[in-house]
Amino acid sequence: MVFLVMAIGLSACSQPEIEKPGETIDLLISNGTIVTMDAEWRVIRNGYIAVRGDRILAIGEMQDLEKRRYIAVTKIDARERLIVPGLINAHTHIPMTLFRGIADDLRLQEWLEKYIFPAEAMNVDRDFVVAGTRLGLIEMIHGGTTTYVDMYYFEDAIAEETRHAGLRAVLGETVIDFPVADNKTWEEAIAYTERFVKKWKNDSLITPAIAPHAPYTVSTGHLEEVSLFAKKHDIPIVTHIAEASTETAFTRKNFKAGPVSYLDRIGFLSDRVIAAHVVHVDDSDIAILKNRGVGVVHCPQSNMKLSSGVSPVNRMLIANIRIGLGTDSASSNNDLSLWEEMDTAAKLHKLINQDPTVLNARQAFSMATIGGARAIHREKEIGSLESGKKADFIVLDTDAPHLIPRYNIYSHLVYATKASDVRDMVVNGRILMRDRNLLTLSEFEVKNAARRYQMRVADSFKNREK
Amino acid sequence: MVFLVMAIGLSACSQPEIEKPGETIDLLISNGTIVTMDAEWRVIRNGYIAVRGDRILAIGEMQDLEKRRYIAVTKIDARERLIVPGLINAHTHIPMTLFRGIADDLRLQEWLEKYIFPAEAMNVDRDFVVAGTRLGLIEMIHGGTTTYVDMYYFEDAIAEETRHAGLRAVLGETVIDFPVADNKTWEEAIAYTERFVKKWKNDSLITPAIAPHAPYTVSTGHLEEVSLFAKKHDIPIVTHIAEASTETAFTRKNFKAGPVSYLDRIGFLSDRVIAAHVVHVDDSDIAILKNRGVGVVHCPQSNMKLSSGVSPVNRMLIANIRIGLGTDSASSNNDLSLWEEMDTAAKLHKLINQDPTVLNARQAFSMATIGGARAIHREKEIGSLESGKKADFIVLDTDAPHLIPRYNIYSHLVYATKASDVRDMVVNGRILMRDRNLLTLSEFEVKNAARRYQMRVADSFKNREK
Repeated sequence: MVFLVMAIGLSACSQPEIEKPGETIDLLISNGTIVTMDAEWRVIRNGYIAVRGDRILAIGEMQDLEKRRYIAVTKIDARERLIVPGLINAHTHIPMTLFRGIADDLRLQEWLEKYIFPAEAMNVDRDFVVAGTRLGLIEMIHGGTTTYVDMYYFEDAIAEETRHAGLRAVLGETVIDFPVADNKTWEEAIAYTERFVKKWKNDSLITPAIAPHAPYTVSTGHLEEVSLFAKKHDIPIVTHIAEASTETAFTRKNFKAGPVSYLDRIGFLSDRVIAAHVVHVDDSDIAILKNRGVGVVHCPQSNMKLSSGVSPVNRMLIANIRIGLGTDSASSNNDLSLWEEMDTAAKLHKLINQDPTVLNARQAFSMATIGGARAIHREKEIGSLESGKKADFIVLDTDAPHLIPRYNIYSHLVYATKASDVRDMVVNGRILMRDRNLLTLSEFEVKNAARRYQMRVADSFKNREK
Repeated sequence: MVFLVMAIGLSACSQPEIEKPGETIDLLISNGTIVTMDAEWRVIRNGYIAVRGDRILAIGEMQDLEKRRYIAVTKIDARERLIVPGLINAHTHIPMTLFRGIADDLRLQEWLEKYIFPAEAMNVDRDFVVAGTRLGLIEMIHGGTTTYVDMYYFEDAIAEETRHAGLRAVLGETVIDFPVADNKTWEEAIAYTERFVKKWKNDSLITPAIAPHAPYTVSTGHLEEVSLFAKKHDIPIVTHIAEASTETAFTRKNFKAGPVSYLDRIGFLSDRVIAAHVVHVDDSDIAILKNRGVGVVHCPQSNMKLSSGVSPVNRMLIANIRIGLGTDSASSNNDLSLWEEMDTAAKLHKLINQDPTVLNARQAFSMATIGGARAIHREKEIGSLESGKKADFIVLDTDAPHLIPRYNIYSHLVYATKASDVRDMVVNGRILMRDRNLLTLSEFEVKNAARRYQMRVADSFKNREK
């Protein structure tokens, strides 16, 4: 796949003097329409991206490329294609792809208590997490997600797999007030998380994090401990906040406040926090989230499917809150496609606000890119295509029938583009997918391993019934 | 592509007597998991479908196939794949695919008056309709839709193109109280429709219909005339009913009743009617629709995007109303994927009813198949896979990462399957797509023609601005 070429050869009318050698770069993407998602919303109709190491060295119009005289080790011709920032899935539980569709159309309590918790208790171990992570990774790479935020067990294994596959991730090791798959006590969980954080702290792709499950499953004392832990290690906190009305009832009963004001009172909210869902919040909660710099992750499909409610996204956008999009796990969605999440978000908030101008296509696409980067506090590094930023982007085919004609590029990205239109992926300057072929994982082996787990999980339920 | 084979050869231990020749059939699909959508919701884990002419001759388990001793002209091996009824898109305006994404995120009036109506006035003629229909057809075939219901102008051209491509369709020629692209007066429109109906009345694929636009754009007298016309010619009536609150305001002001009770009072509602949207209806309207046998077409994504409201689908299902799904046009959705429509419907009604058990996966898949057939009054012919019914079905790949693992087949079909998973399509016994290759249309030519129209449409707006 890798071949050495002169990006731009000698000019047709060659000069007698000896040409100075050009600058060597690692990767050149040329001839594509580039949707930068930068502060000026620049769209470059016929452009190039030059990559050196893990970063974008230069980005611009093709007509300016010749004078750069790059010598590129690898080239991708994006003629007739779109180049857009890699998508950011700001909330998922990646190993749960192995539970995709295990139980649907159930009330939250029944879904959790009869299916998800037993399925986890009977099946989740380190090997399960490895197999589920790999399956989620191939789905996300095929679908154009270059960065994801996770919360699960055995995050160290998830980090190993993600590092190997080459994706960027914020990985939050779950801490919770009852025994779970990897750690049986709070102390064990904190000790595990400390080892995990130390191991991955300076990795170029993996950002280790701590993930207290939710205000109703982690005590006040433990949440305070998490805050100190995150500060001490300078890491993000990944959590669920205000997902269901039952949570609000819980915090009102126990702490005389809704989840957001309770968490603020105990000093938990800060610009380290990445909070998923944030459905049941009022204007004073929104003001708190804004003031504390909390990143919010909207998960519309999960919230609809579990009938959790509708997050007031429009009001949060008006308040300029950091807000991104998440698929939640494949057991509550049931896929990891951010394209469908964008499309659903844009449509849902038009409906709920009774106003079709709400959450326009550019805003929705922003939530999956630069907005997602802001939500996870990484907007200086990722989320838009600008020189100096990390080289995380995808190349999209534009030839599928559902992509013709094209009058407006953002409309196209949000309302018509599918995961199946993603052709190439570059993360941290490395090509992870080329012409839809995965370069860092064996799709065949990953799928077979997942199918073996399907049988084991199904058997675990059958055996329980005996 | 067509090759002659013995479906089942002589038995391994051959007998001395001469074998009787087997029965010749046109097509044999074998080794697939068949989701029949019949009255018993039968799923055949390892099954076959035998097709002769335009019909399913037999359907059953592979273990029963040998004794049938079929000689099949064409075979499709569906090993590891799913075979499901072809999807029914019960409401669209197919040529409008050429306006995909021309204007989004606007209020209905502005969207219609500043973009859609001018775009139509400046661009729609018979050739435009041909190009747009072809584009919609390749999108629908790729996405698994075998039957669609249309309402537009130049429906005779749409019929020609659809017949050629091999899809099944109910095609409603639009009649409306103002001049439109194909007919400038009511009388011309009725005369056109009469010629159209007579030409296509006995076609095996095309069902001609009359399509009065809506209660607010067609007078009472004209609606009464449409009813008589439909009765005289024994054809369906395709229309929009109760889409927006402005429509209810209009009929209340002018006829002192909501759209449904007004239409019932003038004798318009019957089992000929296929009514799209049906958003703004109450329980007494639902009772009327049920009693009259009206078919209802739910278009959740269009209704969300234009913030029209939410159709009370759950109450209509409980009332056992005939109800299917439609994408509406690609200019208000912006694609023709029924997979996304099913997924959205299932999630939306859980949210709106605050109950995740509402519109379960099997119900949602039913709305796109046998329910859709009921909505268009064709359930005796299509919508499920049973011997004697029309041979309209699709074969689905199950190998994409988002389809692994699989615990529940309906959950899989509704919450995880995408248009890109459709591999083969058979309509009326004819193969229209094989291994994702279209057999009845040149995808390359259709796309190029659509791209030329993209430039023409864009230019028409530019020229208007001058």
